[in-house]
Amino acid sequence: MRPQDVIRRKREGGALSAEEIEFFVQGVTGGEFTDYQAAALLMAIYCRGMDEAEQRTLTEAMLRSGETLDFSDIPLPKADKHSTGGVGDKTSLVIAPLAASCGVAVPMISGRGLGHTGGTLDKLESIPGYRVKLALAEFRSVLKLCGFAMMGQTAEIAPADRKLYALRDATATVETIPLIVASIMSKKLAAGLDALALDVKTGTGAFMREEARARELAHALVATGNSCGVRTEALLTDMNQPLGRAVGHALEVHECIEILRGHAHAAAQPVVDLSVELTARMVALAGVEPTLEAARARALHALQSGAALESFRRNVEAQGGDPRVCDDPARLLQTSTLRAVKVESPRAGFITQVEAAEIGYAVSGIGGGRTRVGDEIDFQIGFVADVKHGDQVGAGGALGTLYCRDDAQAATAGERIRAAYTVGDEPPAPVKLIKEVITA
Amino acid sequence: MRPQDVIRRKREGGALSAEEIEFFVQGVTGGEFTDYQAAALLMAIYCRGMDEAEQRTLTEAMLRSGETLDFSDIPLPKADKHSTGGVGDKTSLVIAPLAASCGVAVPMISGRGLGHTGGTLDKLESIPGYRVKLALAEFRSVLKLCGFAMMGQTAEIAPADRKLYALRDATATVETIPLIVASIMSKKLAAGLDALALDVKTGTGAFMREEARARELAHALVATGNSCGVRTEALLTDMNQPLGRAVGHALEVHECIEILRGHAHAAAQPVVDLSVELTARMVALAGVEPTLEAARARALHALQSGAALESFRRNVEAQGGDPRVCDDPARLLQTSTLRAVKVESPRAGFITQVEAAEIGYAVSGIGGGRTRVGDEIDFQIGFVADVKHGDQVGAGGALGTLYCRDDAQAATAGERIRAAYTVGDEPPAPVKLIKEVITA
Repeated sequence: MRPQDVIRRKREGGALSAEEIEFFVQGVTGGEFTDYQAAALLMAIYCRGMDEAEQRTLTEAMLRSGETLDFSDIPLPKADKHSTGGVGDKTSLVIAPLAASCGVAVPMISGRGLGHTGGTLDKLESIPGYRVKLALAEFRSVLKLCGFAMMGQTAEIAPADRKLYALRDATATVETIPLIVASIMSKKLAAGLDALALDVKTGTGAFMREEARARELAHALVATGNSCGVRTEALLTDMNQPLGRAVGHALEVHECIEILRGHAHAAAQPVVDLSVELTARMVALAGVEPTLEAARARALHALQSGAALESFRRNVEAQGGDPRVCDDPARLLQTSTLRAVKVESPRAGFITQVEAAEIGYAVSGIGGGRTRVGDEIDFQIGFVADVKHGDQVGAGGALGTLYCRDDAQAATAGERIRAAYTVGDEPPAPVKLIKEVITA
Repeated sequence: MRPQDVIRRKREGGALSAEEIEFFVQGVTGGEFTDYQAAALLMAIYCRGMDEAEQRTLTEAMLRSGETLDFSDIPLPKADKHSTGGVGDKTSLVIAPLAASCGVAVPMISGRGLGHTGGTLDKLESIPGYRVKLALAEFRSVLKLCGFAMMGQTAEIAPADRKLYALRDATATVETIPLIVASIMSKKLAAGLDALALDVKTGTGAFMREEARARELAHALVATGNSCGVRTEALLTDMNQPLGRAVGHALEVHECIEILRGHAHAAAQPVVDLSVELTARMVALAGVEPTLEAARARALHALQSGAALESFRRNVEAQGGDPRVCDDPARLLQTSTLRAVKVESPRAGFITQVEAAEIGYAVSGIGGGRTRVGDEIDFQIGFVADVKHGDQVGAGGALGTLYCRDDAQAATAGERIRAAYTVGDEPPAPVKLIKEVITA
């Protein structure tokens, strides 16, 4: 078998055999497939697609390219969630302790932020002392101790995915469902999960703006997860505005801890709702509760009883962070060193549209995120929205507050955020947070 | 501009701007486009195609990636021919001296053979002493002296094409019209031509087996040539059997010299007909004769008068070859050192189909051509066909004679050639050598 033969078959729209996919994935890490041959095949996959069997085979081959984690010594079902990413999407910080306090072990391997979206690892690092680089033994002991542990991908997990992702980024072959599915699922499956709840976002702040494409991705992810032996469901959720109020690292962790403390701002309710629903799915899929209803009730109770907060506190402590943030989340914010700038509505009316990605880019563009891989992040910078889609606002009324460092940042990011909001005369149709549930 | 942006546009089926194409071609030679980015773009072009304007721009950008030859000191119109390649396709050796003796200067830059097809340069090297590696100054002086000169592509001509061709070969992106057009035309245009006659082959021995695809290629080549300022026409010709009788290097040169000497075997008539027609097109397009009819008459006269043979003799001498082969072409053949094996028809009937590529592979597979780049060629090995499509043959009658070195070669190649012929009960519909003429 030669790389050209595999490329040729996909180029003509044929389905690759398991042997051909295995040869590709092994060849990418082993050198039999050069970078340019891999790039040509990636583009052929982009243009011609892959069927369900190919997607599963590709996912499994990428999974097998590296080590898998074995937590069978922990006598609990393992579950995780994954979001395709959005603006202000902070639910992992609520879900992990919530699911853990419902009797599920959550070995969560998360990512960094780039562009308009933030990453869970970066957000956690805004907690003083918190370490996300854990050796596997430490990850395991934190998981045992707290019911959940958080870390980044290691060099040992799905190395083919790392190699391919770098190539995809350089060759404009990122935005294609089979490769997205294999990339997400190969890493998630490496943690040896029993259940997986997916949050597939669609709208102005999502990677898949179009709902139809997001739905297609959700179906492909669910099909691949289940065929690989992990009970998987997906929620198709609205990302036409930031989720909750806060966009920015310390601000988002602050919002999450307030939720765990039962002090959630009314405008943060979507974060609560989505976190509870995703947790309930994990709990039910993991078999800890017999019905989704029972799982929802259990998750709500764990939140309201403070059990989830205690689980979070134990984790912060175990991963080196300052646990006092759990009692006094304001410690996360260095408000006195910042400029707090009111972003004003240019006119009176109703919020009819929000370009959520623009808000993300506005924040990352002034240091509150990464515009390139490797950029340092100013954890304090961010935006707290005062209005949501459909809210009424007066002329000069506050859209929200921008936290930044100087006048130049205030002007640039403030204007970009203002422009992200469309204010109209008529109230728009209400948005639905959870648009659809995709099950096997 | 970033490579990803260019790749993304083509990936989505958009037309690339002149700036984007220029950036790509310069980037490939200059390093701003990595090999894997170039490979991804090549596959995107394979899958999405290019319109006429893009093809012309790509051709011109590849042409400009290197040096162009300037023969304006030669006070004759410059013309050339190009064939997309086939089995026994030897017309260049007849056309170059024929066109030269009709008052056209032919600066012919030719290629090597690979797989089932032979290359003009390799065939010429079967003439003892003949050199195809000429410095540009020598090429120019041979062209002035003989009216034509033959050499291989230099490192200075269209370096982007060499780079891209190597990538295409490794990434299964060879067989796509826009890239074929740009590759062929950028090299041909580098010779500063006024006119170009193309021989686009279709059938069992052609790169484009399907007639519709070959026609599409012919139209694209003609459109690009004319829009780049070179008067260009194409003949769509039959390649459902070897052209003429001989397949193999010395055997093909022998056949050509016999044609130039006026001693063509009756079965070699298609070589004569096609050579005269392509020459006439060159002569007419170059403006040397006012009509195609006049150009045909002039070409026929140059062949029959021996003028073309004299032009060939001068060239052989000028390029270091032994000119005695022009008087005694049998000198080319070392028949006494070879095994001559009759390839027999397994049954009586009519030749209804010939897998021409199989005959090419049979010959190259025993050393009479290259199966890989860099293989040495045994110039003496080859096959001389006794029957053509539609001919009647008896059981055990000769399909032709295989010239090889030993019993093993005789068995392998003989069987492969026998299997290439289908003998049926009914005479097939006759084939037409020139199927169509494609003009601007």
